[in-house]
Amino acid sequence: MGDPSSDLRRAFQAALDATDPERSIVPFLPALPDGRLLVVGAGKAAAAMARAVETHYPASSRLEGVVITRYGHGLPTSRIEVLEASHPVPDEAGVRATERVLELVASAGPDDHVLCLISGGGSALLTAPDGLSLGELRELTTALLRSGADIHEMNCVRKHLSLVKGGRLALAAAPAAVTALLLSDVVGDDPAVIASGPTAADASSYADALEVLERYRIDAPAARSVLAAGARGEREETPRPGDPLLARVRNHVVASNQTALEAAARVLAEAGWRPHVLSSTVTGEAREAASVHAALVRQVVEHGQPFERPCALLSGGETTVTVRGDGRGGRNGEFGLALALALPPDAPVWLLVADSDGIDGSEDNAGALLDPERLARLDRPAARAALERNDSYGVLAAVDGLLVTGPTRTNVNDVRIVLVG
Amino acid sequence: MGDPSSDLRRAFQAALDATDPERSIVPFLPALPDGRLLVVGAGKAAAAMARAVETHYPASSRLEGVVITRYGHGLPTSRIEVLEASHPVPDEAGVRATERVLELVASAGPDDHVLCLISGGGSALLTAPDGLSLGELRELTTALLRSGADIHEMNCVRKHLSLVKGGRLALAAAPAAVTALLLSDVVGDDPAVIASGPTAADASSYADALEVLERYRIDAPAARSVLAAGARGEREETPRPGDPLLARVRNHVVASNQTALEAAARVLAEAGWRPHVLSSTVTGEAREAASVHAALVRQVVEHGQPFERPCALLSGGETTVTVRGDGRGGRNGEFGLALALALPPDAPVWLLVADSDGIDGSEDNAGALLDPERLARLDRPAARAALERNDSYGVLAAVDGLLVTGPTRTNVNDVRIVLVG
Repeated sequence: MGDPSSDLRRAFQAALDATDPERSIVPFLPALPDGRLLVVGAGKAAAAMARAVETHYPASSRLEGVVITRYGHGLPTSRIEVLEASHPVPDEAGVRATERVLELVASAGPDDHVLCLISGGGSALLTAPDGLSLGELRELTTALLRSGADIHEMNCVRKHLSLVKGGRLALAAAPAAVTALLLSDVVGDDPAVIASGPTAADASSYADALEVLERYRIDAPAARSVLAAGARGEREETPRPGDPLLARVRNHVVASNQTALEAAARVLAEAGWRPHVLSSTVTGEAREAASVHAALVRQVVEHGQPFERPCALLSGGETTVTVRGDGRGGRNGEFGLALALALPPDAPVWLLVADSDGIDGSEDNAGALLDPERLARLDRPAARAALERNDSYGVLAAVDGLLVTGPTRTNVNDVRIVLVG
Repeated sequence: MGDPSSDLRRAFQAALDATDPERSIVPFLPALPDGRLLVVGAGKAAAAMARAVETHYPASSRLEGVVITRYGHGLPTSRIEVLEASHPVPDEAGVRATERVLELVASAGPDDHVLCLISGGGSALLTAPDGLSLGELRELTTALLRSGADIHEMNCVRKHLSLVKGGRLALAAAPAAVTALLLSDVVGDDPAVIASGPTAADASSYADALEVLERYRIDAPAARSVLAAGARGEREETPRPGDPLLARVRNHVVASNQTALEAAARVLAEAGWRPHVLSSTVTGEAREAASVHAALVRQVVEHGQPFERPCALLSGGETTVTVRGDGRGGRNGEFGLALALALPPDAPVWLLVADSDGIDGSEDNAGALLDPERLARLDRPAARAALERNDSYGVLAAVDGLLVTGPTRTNVNDVRIVLVG
């Protein structure tokens, strides 16, 4: 084995490479159709994906398109127009850009093929309020976020107040064939959840959406009026699973957290660590999830269970942080620090915990990278106090334990690797 | 494979049998000494352990003793006196009983052997305040519990205000040989932590204990006066690791959570499930720990990682519940219900989550036992709402998902088993 910290860095780089949007869409690109290839899409990686599409097909092909990305994320393109809009809060530029997308898709005939490129942020960028204003939609979203409704309940409401979500983009493309290529930034990789499923069937109804507003006592008169009309059958439902209008639609998750973990695992296996993917869907409070990971690491060290040393434990997903203090540092820094503090100071452990997009929260680091020397140097009482006020950044910086990569080209949530030597 | 639910029940019973205090101490009982065999001890299982000792040695042996158990936990004995006292809050009966224990131990000569029997609850039952009143000690304990101090900080203070904790019981027994048999009810099984380590060396000092009170700004004048005198060298420190006075002391953890998990794993292996012990030291908020366990189960089901199906995942330790509502049900019910809700309704999963002492919190159940049929029958929105108000009991009862065993003879914390078919 070489230097474990360098193995960790190489494994993380492999995870990023395997989920690079430009590379990962290529194997899933459709053959040129008899008609036009119409490229649409939205997300932080939309411009990069559009460029990969332009490179793949010959200049002579009948290819045109329009994709939406976040302000500042545009790239020069030749045949696919790149529009910019606001994320995470949608703006009027996003509404106008989405109109352009819908117009292009609506022009598709049976010989055309619609290629839809979706990445993280697509839900906010692809915005077409149906029956209410953008301002009303924003207020409703804020109220839903505060209500305690879960992601499925939120999506149920949003899909029924949009001309583009919940499979309606795909409906607009009929009778053309549709290929949607999705870079998953949601835990579980469900095409109906990624970007609120513009090309996926929707099992929920207007009545369900109305019930969510009732359940959480959300006022929102404009939204209620739309949903009530839909529940009375006065508006068209989102397409259900099995809807014949979606018969020519294919969704492919081209890269996901699982892709990232498996790529990292391959590098670690080659480096002599026995890799074990624990889960790509770990959610919950960062420090609590870290505590369970620490319990597993202790078991490996003390009992050789459930895995023998040396080994690498990999996990992904997306944790959350309940903010209690005014400290600096994101969910991955908290996870890394909490994991370190739950292990003995002399644990034979190297760990990398990072956001795959390279930015952990609002600081300049992707996460944490710690080795036994740094674990031993942590001032534990001070670190515990810092963790209490969500201040992982300074403690990690003090032992040179920040992982800084700068923004990466991908976004498949969190990657955590623990090497036990 | 037979019926998975019956496999779960048999595995749990095997865990209880393997950690039965009467059975588990026998292989560790010392040979009769030239002098007297003096038996002392404290804990909920103290009377049962004392009876096992009486049975093991011939009636003619020079055996005498006094052990302390919780009110209502006494059993008839012949040669070892059983005293009862209060748990978890210590009382004057405990103080008087501990005086009896110390007197007997102090009478030990070099040819005598002191056998110390410790089980869950021993810390409260073995109470000898040093330099402050029982009332002052109780107030201090309450303040420490509220302060956010961790278990090591709490123990550091308590050991330096006691004539019996922190190795002082063993010191009192010198020059006799001491064998301490510990049934571990603490995560990690450290003899210095179990019952505040009456027979284990202590790495902390009076100065450390005083610093804990400073750190958490705890007033406690009587305690501070004792600790300050100790820090000035006016009182004898607890015995450090390597102290020659402890040269004849042996501590044996005779059974622990790990013992329980391994016994359950053996039964499951025989039943055709591939068992994997994840960790015997899982702590943290019950629902959060359950969420990570669910993420592992999903990975097994969806990717065959890190284990192939069929398999059994076992974990132990002790979770906590932050009370938010006024519902019924303990930490294991919450864990079981949260785990169930984090899995798809059609998951091929059987789960048993229980407190090894047979009582989960304040209800009559040991925990939860759920199979696919019960998982499918859960009313999920209602169950989520119930979980929010800590009301797992009713939801589990509604699907006949409570595990009821009655009080068991052991206490090695929580046992969780998930079978993935």
